[in-house]
Amino acid sequence: MSLTQLKVPPGAIETFGDGVGFVALVDRMQTDHALKVVNAARISYEKQRTEFDDKDKKLCRFLWEHGHTSPYRHSFYTFHWKAPLFVFRQAFKYQVGSGWREYTVNGEEVALEVFDVLFDTDKGCSWNEVSGRYVQWTPEFYLPRTFRGNPPHGNKQASLDLPADFDHAGEHALMAEECRLAFERYEARIARGVAKEIARMCLPQNLYSQAYWTVSLQGVLHFLEQRLKPDAQFEIRTYADAVFELVRDDLERVGVTRQAIVDGLG
Amino acid sequence: MSLTQLKVPPGAIETFGDGVGFVALVDRMQTDHALKVVNAARISYEKQRTEFDDKDKKLCRFLWEHGHTSPYRHSFYTFHWKAPLFVFRQAFKYQVGSGWREYTVNGEEVALEVFDVLFDTDKGCSWNEVSGRYVQWTPEFYLPRTFRGNPPHGNKQASLDLPADFDHAGEHALMAEECRLAFERYEARIARGVAKEIARMCLPQNLYSQAYWTVSLQGVLHFLEQRLKPDAQFEIRTYADAVFELVRDDLERVGVTRQAIVDGLG
Amino acid sequence: MSLTQLKVPPGAIETFGDGVGFVALVDRMQTDHALKVVNAARISYEKQRTEFDDKDKKLCRFLWEHGHTSPYRHSFYTFHWKAPLFVFRQAFKYQVGSGWREYTVNGEEVALEVFDVLFDTDKGCSWNEVSGRYVQWTPEFYLPRTFRGNPPHGNKQASLDLPADFDHAGEHALMAEECRLAFERYEARIARGVAKEIARMCLPQNLYSQAYWTVSLQGVLHFLEQRLKPDAQFEIRTYADAVFELVRDDLERVGVTRQAIVDGLG
Amino acid sequence: MSLTQLKVPPGAIETFGDGVGFVALVDRMQTDHALKVVNAARISYEKQRTEFDDKDKKLCRFLWEHGHTSPYRHSFYTFHWKAPLFVFRQAFKYQVGSGWREYTVNGEEVALEVFDVLFDTDKGCSWNEVSGRYVQWTPEFYLPRTFRGNPPHGNKQASLDLPADFDHAGEHALMAEECRLAFERYEARIARGVAKEIARMCLPQNLYSQAYWTVSLQGVLHFLEQRLKPDAQFEIRTYADAVFELVRDDLERVGVTRQAIVDGLG
Repeated sequence: MSLTQLKVPPGAIETFGDGVGFVALVDRMQTDHALKVVNAARISYEKQRTEFDDKDKKLCRFLWEHGHTSPYRHSFYTFHWKAPLFVFRQAFKYQVGSGWREYTVNGEEVALEVFDVLFDTDKGCSWNEVSGRYVQWTPEFYLPRTFRGNPPHGNKQASLDLPADFDHAGEHALMAEECRLAFERYEARIARGVAKEIARMCLPQNLYSQAYWTVSLQGVLHFLEQRLKPDAQFEIRTYADAVFELVRDDLERVGVTRQAIVDGLG
Repeated sequence: MSLTQLKVPPGAIETFGDGVGFVALVDRMQTDHALKVVNAARISYEKQRTEFDDKDKKLCRFLWEHGHTSPYRHSFYTFHWKAPLFVFRQAFKYQVGSGWREYTVNGEEVALEVFDVLFDTDKGCSWNEVSGRYVQWTPEFYLPRTFRGNPPHGNKQASLDLPADFDHAGEHALMAEECRLAFERYEARIARGVAKEIARMCLPQNLYSQAYWTVSLQGVLHFLEQRLKPDAQFEIRTYADAVFELVRDDLERVGVTRQAIVDGLG
Repeated sequence: MSLTQLKVPPGAIETFGDGVGFVALVDRMQTDHALKVVNAARISYEKQRTEFDDKDKKLCRFLWEHGHTSPYRHSFYTFHWKAPLFVFRQAFKYQVGSGWREYTVNGEEVALEVFDVLFDTDKGCSWNEVSGRYVQWTPEFYLPRTFRGNPPHGNKQASLDLPADFDHAGEHALMAEECRLAFERYEARIARGVAKEIARMCLPQNLYSQAYWTVSLQGVLHFLEQRLKPDAQFEIRTYADAVFELVRDDLERVGVTRQAIVDGLG
Repeated sequence: MSLTQLKVPPGAIETFGDGVGFVALVDRMQTDHALKVVNAARISYEKQRTEFDDKDKKLCRFLWEHGHTSPYRHSFYTFHWKAPLFVFRQAFKYQVGSGWREYTVNGEEVALEVFDVLFDTDKGCSWNEVSGRYVQWTPEFYLPRTFRGNPPHGNKQASLDLPADFDHAGEHALMAEECRLAFERYEARIARGVAKEIARMCLPQNLYSQAYWTVSLQGVLHFLEQRLKPDAQFEIRTYADAVFELVRDDLERVGVTRQAIVDGLG
């Protein structure tokens, strides 16, 4: 009776303005997160605080800047995401850091790939997601309104603006049509009796899915440090922006600004 | 000004009746943990519930019994412990499972040690503790009122009752005196100028320390499954009992009883 | 100069007989893994062995059967996988356990979904993978020769045989054509200047990728326990079969058979 | 028959020159670790190398310096430690970083504790240790020949030299005697029938124990970065030195020097 389709939670932040993707903060702990940071830190000295003041804020910021982030691991948050599959892959399975860098070795220029695979889930987080083995998907796809180009030389940056005459609307329409057809073929395949777990494998990776993500304040910061950076892929950066907005007040209270995160101070 | 010594939090459960050791639940999330379990599970089907009923309770119990415990990982709790150092070592660094088992190989009796080292911290928990490098310890020691003996054959069980004429009071007094003297030597050593980080290494392991422990409901269950068992060492079992009491209502709501945990159904 | 395309390593086991997918064991430790299991276990007793005999084999099996698997965590293996993206997602990001189960509550039949999301990476493994942000993909897709159907009632089992008259060859041809066209559109999109990181999102999830996976013997066993089960999806089960073959001798040496894994004894 | 007491492995490095403490490298993988780093990194580009040259070395160093250390996670090492209990606690359970720092807030001097609790085991390592529940300990204790003092102001640095007239030999003799007596009381207590698991709790924390530690090259680097620093406690730093010596050639091959680690370049 009370078993319903997943709803958009109150306070959700839309990600792409398409009426589909969003991030919402759906649960958190009861105690002041800022006081928890300083008390988790001060227990080393058998001390505690009952009020949070400016010196505490400086301490919080200091701890974060110097990588002493374990005291940030005592406050947890649950987020509800609706995002394309490839964003989920980036957000929770792995990340590929930045791109191509040049430096000089023995007077010779060397161009080297730099990248990384980091499990964002390493910092104590939990993750439950819609399963395409069990549900038949809904035809919702992420379709960019504005497209981006490749950097001129290798993978120098994440991606670049396209020439002024690029037909964004046409590309959007084409992609929408491709996805519509892919979904028709998916439905037809299931109608012919093929298992959902097989049929889904031909669906493109911009299909929308949903998940709950429970993560500590340390994990949130780690995620933002990776994903707010300019060389993170635009789509995941958009989700990082939304997550940041949802915890902006919490972060400001512990002295951590968006700029400090982007500047890599943590 | 508001920086004070660590206080005993309201609702703390005393562990050894010595006016020192305790466990308290000091923080938790805001949303009904039981509803979170079923919703984290049902997101696989893109479904959610707004009320928790008996079928949900059965589902929760079923998930736990079959080891599908990831949906239990979206609710977090913070506990404050005051416990002897060796209990902390057992609780958070490693555990040594049960003891000595006999079985028959090719008609021949073999006695084998069984044991394990499991990080209780594996299931997503956080841990901050008093540091003996920074604080000079307080002379508080765990001193058993009743002592236990070794099992007759190897390590068959955790420990056994001592003979009826064992002088428990005398043993207690002796241990108290040893600890008092050890602490005097610790203070004298520091007075002679020796660093706290060196002086502490001669203190016995029944010294009391304090810590914050933040852990998911999954982690709490994992901890209780290991530590409520009869072959867990008495002292850590006592802390597991206290933790269980603090979350008893939460566990009953998801259909998990103390008996089911002890019987190893999860 | 010596920078080449990824090659198929010697000893690789083909997974789908399509000349594309494979798993290979490319590195391992030097010491006898079986002796390491018993010595990691026996260090609790300050004992060690220099030869491995039948009692040791029984001990290894016993430890595994009773969940005391930390001694299995001292031998590591590196595998090289070439597999479809959706298999990678299942293998390394999450797993959805079994399916639909029925049981009786108060005399009433209830059908409940059972599932789980477990990070196979939890047991200490490492993972590096091809990045679609950096490389332009090769048009290699996993295309089943034999298709499977959905179970009649909900998700009772993983998937079922299709009716005898199902046109497997036709379905295969259709899927091959869809993938060919999707890849053409991917290439065309890149040719129009669209970034690889955008273009890739319309590729279907049966695209082949490659990865290195380094994992302990404990992790291998954990993976096999999840993926050799009959209700695991056929494709991931095929990879589990290949991994099993690559470590079959190692497992038999510690007393663990394929049947014992499938029967869930561990 | 071949079940013996733990032996000192060949190639062990003594830690305190007391004929007791040591670290030994007892197992590692078969493939060139350096080639694995670059190949784990280059799989993002579907490329591989069969020979390791200077550019690869630069790449390895670069990856480490920029925190892209996941490619270092495909080579594993097993070490055998014999160390005091308190060193084990520091090495494998938690670490408390540096000490007391001063900085200026709004023109006012503030002295703040800085510290951290990091699980060195987070980076994929395994750990099995002697259990005081099962074995009766051997009377081996770590006894410093040279003592250190507290920093003058709070915990400014780790510890300082004592005045020139400090009686190191006397302090050493006193500590040796205390430990001898504590062990006598431990044996007497067991002789009176008290369980080993209780008797051990009065033993001081400089008691020697033994453990196997299996860890990736990433984990080794992480450990060295924490423990080679001048503000790490002398005793754990001594073990870090020994670990460094055991992998010095491996690290130099990937361009990582002791100085770079101490300077915090990684």
